[in-house]
Amino acid sequence: MNSVFQKTMIFMQNRISQLFGIQYPVIQGGMIWCSGWQLASAVSNAGGLGLIGAGSMRPDVLREHIRKTKAATEKPFGVNVPLLYPNVEEIMQLIVDEGVKIVFTSAGNPKTWTNFLQNKGIKVAHVVSNSKFAQKADEAGVDAIVAEGFEAGGHNGREETTTLVLIPAVRAVTALPLIAAGGIFSGRSMLANMVLGADGVQIGSAFAASEESSAHENFKKAVIYSKEGDTNLLLKQLVPVRLLRNAFAQRIETAESEGKSKEELSELLGRGRAKLGMFEGDMTEGELEIGQVSALIKSIKPVKHIMDDILLEYRTAKAQIQHIRFDF
Amino acid sequence: MNSVFQKTMIFMQNRISQLFGIQYPVIQGGMIWCSGWQLASAVSNAGGLGLIGAGSMRPDVLREHIRKTKAATEKPFGVNVPLLYPNVEEIMQLIVDEGVKIVFTSAGNPKTWTNFLQNKGIKVAHVVSNSKFAQKADEAGVDAIVAEGFEAGGHNGREETTTLVLIPAVRAVTALPLIAAGGIFSGRSMLANMVLGADGVQIGSAFAASEESSAHENFKKAVIYSKEGDTNLLLKQLVPVRLLRNAFAQRIETAESEGKSKEELSELLGRGRAKLGMFEGDMTEGELEIGQVSALIKSIKPVKHIMDDILLEYRTAKAQIQHIRFDF
Repeated sequence: MNSVFQKTMIFMQNRISQLFGIQYPVIQGGMIWCSGWQLASAVSNAGGLGLIGAGSMRPDVLREHIRKTKAATEKPFGVNVPLLYPNVEEIMQLIVDEGVKIVFTSAGNPKTWTNFLQNKGIKVAHVVSNSKFAQKADEAGVDAIVAEGFEAGGHNGREETTTLVLIPAVRAVTALPLIAAGGIFSGRSMLANMVLGADGVQIGSAFAASEESSAHENFKKAVIYSKEGDTNLLLKQLVPVRLLRNAFAQRIETAESEGKSKEELSELLGRGRAKLGMFEGDMTEGELEIGQVSALIKSIKPVKHIMDDILLEYRTAKAQIQHIRFDF
Repeated sequence: MNSVFQKTMIFMQNRISQLFGIQYPVIQGGMIWCSGWQLASAVSNAGGLGLIGAGSMRPDVLREHIRKTKAATEKPFGVNVPLLYPNVEEIMQLIVDEGVKIVFTSAGNPKTWTNFLQNKGIKVAHVVSNSKFAQKADEAGVDAIVAEGFEAGGHNGREETTTLVLIPAVRAVTALPLIAAGGIFSGRSMLANMVLGADGVQIGSAFAASEESSAHENFKKAVIYSKEGDTNLLLKQLVPVRLLRNAFAQRIETAESEGKSKEELSELLGRGRAKLGMFEGDMTEGELEIGQVSALIKSIKPVKHIMDDILLEYRTAKAQIQHIRFDF
């Protein structure tokens, strides 16, 4: 056990719930076309941290979702901002103007926006997929780090490090509050990641398939009927993304196995496919972003029900660890 | 929580240590060119289960390793047999003749050999990478199942399911004793997998880099100096295998990204590369099989030291769970 671990983990209350002022250290991942105000406010009302996924929203739409979230919950909530979008300055100003208190940033340099946001009293968490970027986020002064493994849905790291390996790797290089993401959907997977060194978890797929998710019903059904091996990490030459297999994803897979160029893949991808699939419900030609745990999600449930199940299983698993079968 | 889980997990002593008559439910993975009699006997002597990796051995060599293991330990040990080898009948008869009491089978149909071995009083575990094969192993009557995730070194499943997702998936379909493999190297990763539903763990890479491993010193050093992202799952068109990046692996990666055929990849692979790399120490042209956790293994230690570290960290992590930061 390394010294950072010992120093930061043993005699401390839960740092993630304290940092964000929430009841349980369960963050709902910001997901394009899934996490609008209904989902974010439902998760916050259930005691977790709801995040509006700004990635799929024009500024005026984001403003509307922020206002509706504020109307729907008195609990803390946040906005997830992928830093690669061209209008990120406008988005950040809007977030400040609307009085949002928590921002999760991803897909970019954490140095660019962390100080700006913190100077306005906003807590900042940054998403990484390896320990090198975790160190950079730490140096940039973020309040928390989200470490997301290979099994996560949507955009994903190039190194393919799984959550089980990534969390110890990140924990070894930073003393900051750490949120594990990728492959987490249940109380047991939550507790397992806390054991690995995380202070909290981010859950995506299970909330993407919830009743309050803004995703199309067709997409939610495709998720709950999917099986092991039905997702693949594709488009590694562009930006790696984990997709549910359908006609579109299979075309991409075939093109990649034939050694097609970046340009040809970009052409094949086209534009607007995530909206087409997840929001408009085209299960053949749409881009369907979801994690490997889709194989373990069996029904479309209300957020409150999902949270209750997670907490019940977490507490049961925690109590079971005291049993003799864990004693060596 | 599903009912199989509740029925099998709560009121039971550790089923893996009972099944094999060992002290701790820690299995050393059978690994070609690494796990000869020195490693297997050292792990068994340290209270785990040592496995001789028959995959790289001619029958006469395997016989010698079994005899030397028996001479070096009075504790239980086993042999790992990949079922795809052409001389598997000879190997199995030899195992019976030499009085081996535990066999781990992989890479083949568990129905073929399970009854034969069990009728000779041998306990059989079978390695799978998805829940469908776990069900088949259960139906074949094996005594235990090893479920190995995407992050594991060496040969690997096509579906790329990570250990964090695979263990709950397998636990949901079988009540058999379950051993988690892939990404496990420490007491925390061991406890995390027990929380997910495993009854024990299989550890490969950490033992491959141990003092008692028969791997070449060059390979052990390459493992401990490797970093996150230095392994890749390659040769997916043939049999997927996780390799440490070197000149050879990069040629394979390039060939795959160019869409080369199976035949061209087989040609590029050639024969004897695993021996060349792991046993003879050619770090440029050899095939170097290792798991993602290689990035987290920082020194070449004796097996006893590795086991002590794992158990100490396991007990510490287990005690910490009772702390208030885990209370919700």
